[in-house]
Amino acid sequence: MGKTLTEKILSSHLEEGCIEAGKPIGIHIDQTLTQDATGTMAYLQFESMGLDRIKNELAVSYVDHNTVQVGFENADDHRYLQSVAASKGIVFSRAGNGICHQVHLERFGAPGKTLLGSDSHTPTGGGLAMIAIGAGGLDVAVAMAGGPFHIISPKVVEIRLSGKLRPWVSAKDVILAVLEHFTVKGNVNCVFEYTGEGVKTLQVTDRATICNMGAECGVTTSLFPSDENTLAFLQAQGRAQDYVPLLADSDAVYDQLFELDLSVLEPLCACPHSPGNIARMKDFAGKKIDQVLIGSCTNSSYTDMKKVADILDGHTVSEHVSLGIAPGSREVLLMLASDGSLAKMIASGARILESACGFCIGNHQSPNTNGISLRTSNRNFEGRSGTKSGQLYLVSPESAALSAIAGTFVDPLGNHGIAYPQVSMPEKFIIDDRMFIFPPLDGSQVEIVRGPNIGNPPINTPLAKNLKGVVAIKVGDKITTDHIMPAGARLKYRSNIPEYSKYVFEPVDPLFPARAAKNRDAGVGNVIVAGASYGQGSSREHAAICPMFLGVKAVVAISIERIHQNNLCNFGIVPLTFKDEKDYLRISEGDELVIDDIVSQISTGTVVLTDKTANLAFSLDCHCTEDQKEMLLAGGLLNVLKGEK
Amino acid sequence: MGKTLTEKILSSHLEEGCIEAGKPIGIHIDQTLTQDATGTMAYLQFESMGLDRIKNELAVSYVDHNTVQVGFENADDHRYLQSVAASKGIVFSRAGNGICHQVHLERFGAPGKTLLGSDSHTPTGGGLAMIAIGAGGLDVAVAMAGGPFHIISPKVVEIRLSGKLRPWVSAKDVILAVLEHFTVKGNVNCVFEYTGEGVKTLQVTDRATICNMGAECGVTTSLFPSDENTLAFLQAQGRAQDYVPLLADSDAVYDQLFELDLSVLEPLCACPHSPGNIARMKDFAGKKIDQVLIGSCTNSSYTDMKKVADILDGHTVSEHVSLGIAPGSREVLLMLASDGSLAKMIASGARILESACGFCIGNHQSPNTNGISLRTSNRNFEGRSGTKSGQLYLVSPESAALSAIAGTFVDPLGNHGIAYPQVSMPEKFIIDDRMFIFPPLDGSQVEIVRGPNIGNPPINTPLAKNLKGVVAIKVGDKITTDHIMPAGARLKYRSNIPEYSKYVFEPVDPLFPARAAKNRDAGVGNVIVAGASYGQGSSREHAAICPMFLGVKAVVAISIERIHQNNLCNFGIVPLTFKDEKDYLRISEGDELVIDDIVSQISTGTVVLTDKTANLAFSLDCHCTEDQKEMLLAGGLLNVLKGEK
Repeated sequence: MGKTLTEKILSSHLEEGCIEAGKPIGIHIDQTLTQDATGTMAYLQFESMGLDRIKNELAVSYVDHNTVQVGFENADDHRYLQSVAASKGIVFSRAGNGICHQVHLERFGAPGKTLLGSDSHTPTGGGLAMIAIGAGGLDVAVAMAGGPFHIISPKVVEIRLSGKLRPWVSAKDVILAVLEHFTVKGNVNCVFEYTGEGVKTLQVTDRATICNMGAECGVTTSLFPSDENTLAFLQAQGRAQDYVPLLADSDAVYDQLFELDLSVLEPLCACPHSPGNIARMKDFAGKKIDQVLIGSCTNSSYTDMKKVADILDGHTVSEHVSLGIAPGSREVLLMLASDGSLAKMIASGARILESACGFCIGNHQSPNTNGISLRTSNRNFEGRSGTKSGQLYLVSPESAALSAIAGTFVDPLGNHGIAYPQVSMPEKFIIDDRMFIFPPLDGSQVEIVRGPNIGNPPINTPLAKNLKGVVAIKVGDKITTDHIMPAGARLKYRSNIPEYSKYVFEPVDPLFPARAAKNRDAGVGNVIVAGASYGQGSSREHAAICPMFLGVKAVVAISIERIHQNNLCNFGIVPLTFKDEKDYLRISEGDELVIDDIVSQISTGTVVLTDKTANLAFSLDCHCTEDQKEMLLAGGLLNVLKGEK
Repeated sequence: MGKTLTEKILSSHLEEGCIEAGKPIGIHIDQTLTQDATGTMAYLQFESMGLDRIKNELAVSYVDHNTVQVGFENADDHRYLQSVAASKGIVFSRAGNGICHQVHLERFGAPGKTLLGSDSHTPTGGGLAMIAIGAGGLDVAVAMAGGPFHIISPKVVEIRLSGKLRPWVSAKDVILAVLEHFTVKGNVNCVFEYTGEGVKTLQVTDRATICNMGAECGVTTSLFPSDENTLAFLQAQGRAQDYVPLLADSDAVYDQLFELDLSVLEPLCACPHSPGNIARMKDFAGKKIDQVLIGSCTNSSYTDMKKVADILDGHTVSEHVSLGIAPGSREVLLMLASDGSLAKMIASGARILESACGFCIGNHQSPNTNGISLRTSNRNFEGRSGTKSGQLYLVSPESAALSAIAGTFVDPLGNHGIAYPQVSMPEKFIIDDRMFIFPPLDGSQVEIVRGPNIGNPPINTPLAKNLKGVVAIKVGDKITTDHIMPAGARLKYRSNIPEYSKYVFEPVDPLFPARAAKNRDAGVGNVIVAGASYGQGSSREHAAICPMFLGVKAVVAISIERIHQNNLCNFGIVPLTFKDEKDYLRISEGDELVIDDIVSQISTGTVVLTDKTANLAFSLDCHCTEDQKEMLLAGGLLNVLKGEK
């Protein structure tokens, strides 16, 4: 029986278990990446492991999230990251060098490798035929220490592409179509593997866009084969030596098939407030808009940007629209500055923003009240833009540029009078690695710089035999990590857990932190009760660390997202799901809870929770691997690792 | 007796009084400008006057301060500003179009005109031989309504320039030398008028740099003659028709003379934490730095930026330095993008920031803890960068660029091995006014857009006969408007006085607002006691409006800066100064105060304050014009204007 490409790469990296969908495995990680918002904690954790130097093949530390820098905290973080990188053998990518996923694709990604990143959009690397997975910072720290990364061996879903996209329809529309089909739920522990003749019509950066936003489906990762387009990209990046051809076997067996004819796709958009809320651009044609933002790790490659420049050329951004453009990397920016594209953008009235994540994480460019904002990024959760009433639509760069000129939604296939930009991948990119700082061979003399905001990673205590607690908060469905740990202006506290913990659930219930801390100090365990898809969105482990700091002992939900479940286990918070979803309705905030002998019950996989207030008993699942159960008992992975020494 | 240029322009605009140093006059204002941080309140006040349309020659509303946009407030402000501009006949300059002073110089400034701006660096226009003055928003609103602007007829100080600057010494060093001589104190109600052969060696943008930062001396304004260089600049801007030659009479009599030989000047810097704390670059050569920021209304012209690009060309920003560059206007950015300069900057590792005020007002790019930051901007007050421990040095663009490469202070006249960039003003700038929105001839149908953060201007009550109060806070010398009303992240509350008032004196005493509000609500007047130069820095009238909202009735100080004194009067807060400076030491926070019959005492110019707690009586000056006294009694200018209708 032939192998899928997923299986081939996983097999060649297998360290524990065997590859059978649903079974836990441990894989070796070749490359790691971090960004500054999750990176400080990852490196603090790595430091706490006591190693002189990373043990994996390549680790890159990017600064792309907090580049707005309000207050000393961000700049201090950047200093810490730069110095710890030099000390531990990590490549440091300076602020201004670009968005981790775009830059990694350009300069480091390689077919057949595994990549673990402390950012949920790490699957972007799948565009280069990597198994690229997003995880919490602690998992990345373990991978840098040479330890395996544990996942559930995935179901492999074949997405078979046929045909060729029409002009004005692009990679973003492909992934929006995939999201329309698969939705944002129900795809946990799956890999989307793209196959078929249509694959050849997509360049590496198109593929990267598709893999990037596969994260919104909740899959483990997405990937494309490595073929002549991969070679062309690597050659243009001066890295032909990194090329290996990689394809699934022709008789590979997949768990599921989805066929997608590229030639019939239309320009799509994801409507407020979910990336899975798909509609057609033509449905909204003529509807007035307020803001357009082009960039983010999803759509900020040179070809995306060049198309935008050509569309804008000779036109003026509508009077009622603010158009911001953030090229994805310094390489892209340099290309645009050198070939006249940047001048075209500026002339049209675009505001050129730094090559960074900025607007996508709500760090800046918040829209006006009720403002309709078209963005080429990947998430449109409520409030993520910094404006709670903002109406965010996720669209392709082509749709974004046309709409910015018109001041309304434009159907790119409609009659707008603008010629389609014929842009192809350059044969050679401008290669300039000066904004990377490569570490010295011996970093032992490097002083690590720690500003006053750089704390230590907090450590949990081993799980008590009996859990006595209270429902400290009850939240609904689709609670994202943005709800749990707000980004935007709060991101600067990432390295300071006591401070950042003051904002847990800020958008949902700003009184939660005080209430939880009071319980904790009184010796009462806090329990979070949630609906479906709890913890979706980013990979930020702070959504586990900060609740842990506030004394949260368990999350009881209808369902919990994969990365977040890992993070909960890593920090010793017990992830539990209702056997009967309807029990969610029977439990209330403030209820007193007891789980007797939780330590023993976890090992069975079923836990009985007594709600003393409601006088009910609920049956819960604890879907954890053996490794995760060990972490839960020890009070988190750091305690497990310490016990091993 | 011949006339100074100052006298000539003032005479041609005189509406009230006669020109004699120290006497109050009212002058007609031709042009006004606002920026978004002060503009919303200015236009709200203009609206409250009930006029359909501005009555002055030209009003321009710029968006340059809050372009980072965290939260809905800024974008809502921009919407309000755009709509009120269309409604009232005001030109609107969109976000991204650049910094008000740089853009105004390029596109609107004209020799011999008067310009009033709600920004303290409005004197930049003096580079084009305008009488350009910074004022509070209410003064600008009155000028837009056609009313005169009241000033004290200034002493005119001749700054006679001889010689020619050496390579590597530039306009910034000229104004730093002027600051070294005149300091930041003692120049109130003066105009610096530049004369002499050396003037011809300075281009309009050099002159603008010098006039811009004259504001730090506390002068009313600074100005240069209009000559062939002025003509060349206007021609290059396609505005030769705006040219008129303007010179002082050869026998003009000045109140004071300062002779400055340009040929002996050295590269200077202003050290923490005052623009008047001048040293030589060579004194610090080799000292390690952390950050360099190039831009701001002081040094962001095309020639400044082109010099920077040429210095950076082929070099790399030091590993330990973050270099940010914010070109001053879209015109400058477009020139740099078109001639290859921007690509040179990017290649060197510079982070390209939006054409806006950003870093200068602490909106972003805060340095690391204790970080040494070299900036080409005009103010280095403690904490203004967003990092309280930041060490800000104000330098020329040339010094900044050389230091960014070296990673240390560099003496540009020293042996650094970089060739001096030979840059001259272009014969033709790229002229593209598409990012201005010119108002319709009839704006009566325009709907004014008011987001939830857009409030109404608060109105004071007429002065009570007797003032009974308490010293709500006692502060030291050189309290800036940044201390009184913090900028940075707080700026977004500018349109919402109750909200913004929660941050009065935040950097000095965060408990002040609650304490003051409690007194106010108990019917006790709040009095601020301060040392010398109270209210220096920006023109922000919020430093008067918000204290007024908190029930501040009087400021008792050793001295009060000009613009701030105007703002206090405009909002009905009585400005008082100690006759005997030593009395400052005798009065304490919390002291109970009484001024009996303050209404009558103000009219005499001398006020007796009884400190009941200390059991002392202090004699105070009330240096106000008759107009200002009228405002104080009425509870502010808006009440006076309403009474007139």
